[in-house]
Amino acid sequence: MPTADARISADKLLARIETLGAIGATPEGGVRRLALSDADKAGRDQVMDWLRELGLEVHLDQVGNMFGLRAGLADRAPVMTGSHIDSVQNGGRLDGAYGVLAGLAVVEALNAAGVQTQRPIAVGVFTNEEGARFQPDMMGSLVHAGGLTLHQALDTTDASGARMGDELARIGYAGTMPCGSIRPHAFVEAHIEQGPVLEEDDVIIGAVEDLQGISWTEIRIRGQANHAGTTPMRLRHDAGYCVGAITDHVRTLTRETGGTQVGTVGCIELEPQVINVIPSAGRMTVDLRNTDETRLRGAEQSLERFLTELAASEGVGIHSERLARFEPVRFDPTIVQKIETHARRLGLSCQRMCSGAGHDAQMMARVCPSAMIFVPSAGGISHSPAERTRPEHLVAGADVLLGTLLELAGE
Amino acid sequence: MPTADARISADKLLARIETLGAIGATPEGGVRRLALSDADKAGRDQVMDWLRELGLEVHLDQVGNMFGLRAGLADRAPVMTGSHIDSVQNGGRLDGAYGVLAGLAVVEALNAAGVQTQRPIAVGVFTNEEGARFQPDMMGSLVHAGGLTLHQALDTTDASGARMGDELARIGYAGTMPCGSIRPHAFVEAHIEQGPVLEEDDVIIGAVEDLQGISWTEIRIRGQANHAGTTPMRLRHDAGYCVGAITDHVRTLTRETGGTQVGTVGCIELEPQVINVIPSAGRMTVDLRNTDETRLRGAEQSLERFLTELAASEGVGIHSERLARFEPVRFDPTIVQKIETHARRLGLSCQRMCSGAGHDAQMMARVCPSAMIFVPSAGGISHSPAERTRPEHLVAGADVLLGTLLELAGE
Repeated sequence: MPTADARISADKLLARIETLGAIGATPEGGVRRLALSDADKAGRDQVMDWLRELGLEVHLDQVGNMFGLRAGLADRAPVMTGSHIDSVQNGGRLDGAYGVLAGLAVVEALNAAGVQTQRPIAVGVFTNEEGARFQPDMMGSLVHAGGLTLHQALDTTDASGARMGDELARIGYAGTMPCGSIRPHAFVEAHIEQGPVLEEDDVIIGAVEDLQGISWTEIRIRGQANHAGTTPMRLRHDAGYCVGAITDHVRTLTRETGGTQVGTVGCIELEPQVINVIPSAGRMTVDLRNTDETRLRGAEQSLERFLTELAASEGVGIHSERLARFEPVRFDPTIVQKIETHARRLGLSCQRMCSGAGHDAQMMARVCPSAMIFVPSAGGISHSPAERTRPEHLVAGADVLLGTLLELAGE
Repeated sequence: MPTADARISADKLLARIETLGAIGATPEGGVRRLALSDADKAGRDQVMDWLRELGLEVHLDQVGNMFGLRAGLADRAPVMTGSHIDSVQNGGRLDGAYGVLAGLAVVEALNAAGVQTQRPIAVGVFTNEEGARFQPDMMGSLVHAGGLTLHQALDTTDASGARMGDELARIGYAGTMPCGSIRPHAFVEAHIEQGPVLEEDDVIIGAVEDLQGISWTEIRIRGQANHAGTTPMRLRHDAGYCVGAITDHVRTLTRETGGTQVGTVGCIELEPQVINVIPSAGRMTVDLRNTDETRLRGAEQSLERFLTELAASEGVGIHSERLARFEPVRFDPTIVQKIETHARRLGLSCQRMCSGAGHDAQMMARVCPSAMIFVPSAGGISHSPAERTRPEHLVAGADVLLGTLLELAGE
């Protein structure tokens, strides 16, 4: 492996993070670069300039995914890396952007060292990963992987009614290449962890071997409003109590399920929201995740059983609706192994871990062997202007990416 | 007792309820007659006309309480009845209005039968019982009883910044009589139950022997926002879970405390209220009530202990603030006994009960022996356009009031 000659240029990687972070920058130090907004266009223009400066052959597909191709010696499927540059409403500079710019840093390192690879190397920039403006999230990579039709994607609308396809055309990024045309030999995505595990464990590189399955449920409770003083406990149909009992049970079921099971109640609304009125109605969301499909299904069943019993005991109507469901993804073990090997070679602490967040790599895993490289997030914080990773960790992750891609490109 | 001759005129009582209910009427069949609004003024004008038509001597005090006095044979303290005519934002026709109009119906019955009483009989119409616009509630009776100074009452402001004293003057009901000038021999208030107990038990008359103590607490939880997927359960500081656990504990403590203990979580708010973000902050309210002060204090302590333990185990900040606290009121047993006697005499089913809601009678109990007469509320519903009591029950309650006041006026 000719990796000894090629090393990431820390200065250029960090400078590009700075430059891209200034596009759509917010006063708090974060970014607001919603998919297909003017800020997204400005970010894409900048990345497009960099792809061309680095001598890559640029392809734009019909859903707006951008690919920069560095030619290989052999006529084989490329090894791909990449991520996204769209952000949530009030996001940070690293989520997504880091994976794209780490990919550019790899190309730059190869160019600087004059390294020729057998397979081409591709850097992908996927449309609308966040789903903050158009749903579903991971839209560009999902269309690339054939999990959503181009037509469905273009026809989604944002909260103001703007059509995704119209917005894509408006910013000039509706390409002509059919989606999914580039089928990679392998896909490796670098990303900030977006969680506290690496920092807690004082480890620099996460070799991501799986990605949690996700189950989102919305629960609506219909009880009966009544006076908080005059209604004896035995005569209550209290939607507020039900919201509390369900939230408490979500914590209980994570303990019972064990393993990597997590559970979160993120949203609660009560009606009429008056201090001395028993709530007549409640709405809440439950987010359940596990890397093991059987356990995740068990957690869902535990929740459903609890809802049935609660509806009977409290005399309320409970309606639950599955808002989203993704099975866990198991990344390619040989790529995970390579990531570990290259981290070790570079003297970097490394551990296997799972991803709790969704990423483009999970969609790419449907079409080719894939895996991810994580670097620590300070305080576990992401989707926030406070998103931070130490510069040396950003460079370390890109160096591991470089080694891994080079090895894969030699296959 | 010369009660055989005097009986309530059902037609006139029900017609007055109809007429007053048309003032500030809402399309849904309820009323919106917020304290010191134009609708309150129109309602006061109507009641004032009726007080004068019935030959009562009208007194208006400095906080806007109105009193109609029917002279007695002896120069002794009057026996008083009454309630309020202000409503909540979207209230019913009976809450408060019934007690005032039952008082007028008593006077009318005495006039028609030519009954002379030893003590004068007074009908009071208290300012701002609901507290829907100016806080605290039961303001007029509280000032009358000396629990709030006139100055404090007049200086309160509504949500738009309007001053209570200015609004009182604007509608022409700032009187000159010093507050608390009329110190009654006894006070009896007729009111709809505002709860389901009488209907559930198929009983027409409630002889209210006590009124629950009330403890209102606002709880604020400061946790840490984090990704719902990537944050292991052991590293969470989840304000949403805390809200759920506290709500669940409120139900538990009502069971542990027993007796008449009730507990309600009426309001819950989470931040940032996103399905896949662990809530960083929560706000909620807890309403605890009991007719026994020792038990109510025990319930408060159980809640406080739980908050302390939860803050430690979840690693969150929990701040609780007492928004309101009233000790339970024990009404006068001899008046309660008289109410029972008169209900029995009239062939009406009757049971002793407690009031879960606050009433002007609880303030009057500070200055004279007091009690209340309840009539059933259909479905236990009040503070709603759906507030309903069967006409024969409204008449029955007024007849029991008539008998009770007559007996007290002979003392």
